[in-house]
Amino acid sequence: MKFTKMHGAGNDFVLFNGIEQKIDDYEKLAIKVCDRHFSVGGDGIMVAEKSDVADVKMVYYNSDGSQGEMCGNGVRCFSKFVYDHHIVNKEVFRVETLAGIKTIWLEVDEKGEVKLVKVNMGKPIFDAQKIPVLCKDEKVIEKHIEIDGKNIVFSSVLVGVPHTVIFVEDIKGIDINDLGYKIEAHPKFPKKTNVNFVEVKERNKINVYTWERGAGRTLACGTGCCSSVVIGNILNKLDNHVRVQAEGGVIEVALKDAFEIFMKGSATTICIGNFENM
Amino acid sequence: MKFTKMHGAGNDFVLFNGIEQKIDDYEKLAIKVCDRHFSVGGDGIMVAEKSDVADVKMVYYNSDGSQGEMCGNGVRCFSKFVYDHHIVNKEVFRVETLAGIKTIWLEVDEKGEVKLVKVNMGKPIFDAQKIPVLCKDEKVIEKHIEIDGKNIVFSSVLVGVPHTVIFVEDIKGIDINDLGYKIEAHPKFPKKTNVNFVEVKERNKINVYTWERGAGRTLACGTGCCSSVVIGNILNKLDNHVRVQAEGGVIEVALKDAFEIFMKGSATTICIGNFENM
Repeated sequence: MKFTKMHGAGNDFVLFNGIEQKIDDYEKLAIKVCDRHFSVGGDGIMVAEKSDVADVKMVYYNSDGSQGEMCGNGVRCFSKFVYDHHIVNKEVFRVETLAGIKTIWLEVDEKGEVKLVKVNMGKPIFDAQKIPVLCKDEKVIEKHIEIDGKNIVFSSVLVGVPHTVIFVEDIKGIDINDLGYKIEAHPKFPKKTNVNFVEVKERNKINVYTWERGAGRTLACGTGCCSSVVIGNILNKLDNHVRVQAEGGVIEVALKDAFEIFMKGSATTICIGNFENM
Repeated sequence: MKFTKMHGAGNDFVLFNGIEQKIDDYEKLAIKVCDRHFSVGGDGIMVAEKSDVADVKMVYYNSDGSQGEMCGNGVRCFSKFVYDHHIVNKEVFRVETLAGIKTIWLEVDEKGEVKLVKVNMGKPIFDAQKIPVLCKDEKVIEKHIEIDGKNIVFSSVLVGVPHTVIFVEDIKGIDINDLGYKIEAHPKFPKKTNVNFVEVKERNKINVYTWERGAGRTLACGTGCCSSVVIGNILNKLDNHVRVQAEGGVIEVALKDAFEIFMKGSATTICIGNFENM
């Protein structure tokens, strides 16, 4: 079975052309190929399929076999993949995902190589009940939570998945694993939450470390970078076009009218191969 | 650049044909391709090269870029690799390694598929000074060590690398990470030590969990399985042909005259591919 391994800012995926080769059981395939010792390994798999409503359909499964609605770094990789493999033959196109149709713009150089991928990520949802966060107010902006006797100021937003954003003075001085774990599981968040620690360097430059719900610390979270910029912009800490340095790479986030989010970043092909005995 | 990813009992490697393609910097290559997020990932790389003294030469580098002398699970994968890729066209052959020349026997089925690989691992070294262990006696058999106020009985042997073997009643009740870490770093072991926790099921059947020096808990350690059988045999707990269940798979170990060790186990090809931009 033919596959391509790619990464976006260190978030890695195994991709399949589901039009050329039939896949019976996505869940089983994801668990199998994402194993880092017994297979190629990845944070998830993506399968390109025919779409009735867009140019192509992205089927996304996490490494644990659960289906994912969307993945910011994933959709960039997917977009380069369908272009490189001639599944979609244009530089602006639409991808059907479980979280709606996403418009994609590819930046292609004169050699035909995809250099950057821009994605319209849609609009964030601020409604506390929808995120969800247990909160008396309608929006969850600069609220307080106590962790190990310490008062922490946080804001939350829904960008595909629930995100909590915490601004810190010195990101390297934070115990991401400990704090991320405790906030993710705090009863204030009925469906748990991703946790983004943000250090503002300039009004258009931030560092973000993300603790992902169910996955722990990751090298980069596309929707987490978007959420961090949205919250920073609301709090007037950030402009509406920000360069985000995640642990695994750089992602650019731009906000248009009413917080419509555009995310731009790289997508890298690691290798193309064939699985034996599959 | 063409590669093959394989595993032996969950110990995974990226293999290259160094005769067909030239490799300039092994260290750099190992660090790059063993990264589990930005590349295919593995515990190490192996390169097949021409040998003046054997049928083929195995060059082995760990994921951190350091050169390794030998690797029990690795040499099985390497042996299947050179046979499948027609670098060696026989079923019994000799592999040059930094730890000497190893004789290999392949079990090939009627379809030409390598089912099992047997390796002559040579003889263990019992001399305390050579392992090395700080010990008044010549051999390190059933000695005592105190960890967190508890008395632990251990034996040590050199099978390529220093191995310490500890017999336990119930392997699942042991905190491998905590105990492994503390024993590895104990001043009794000037060059540190791998630590194998062994539960004897029958005289020819054991479970082994290994804490590897520098690598932590791994799914299987070939030389650790061999060391466990050698020590168990000396202590008359085990016969001289034992089925070892490691966390990642099964390895058979047989002892001949004067403890010459033969290890047999599977080697699995995961995928064959090409790295982009390398």
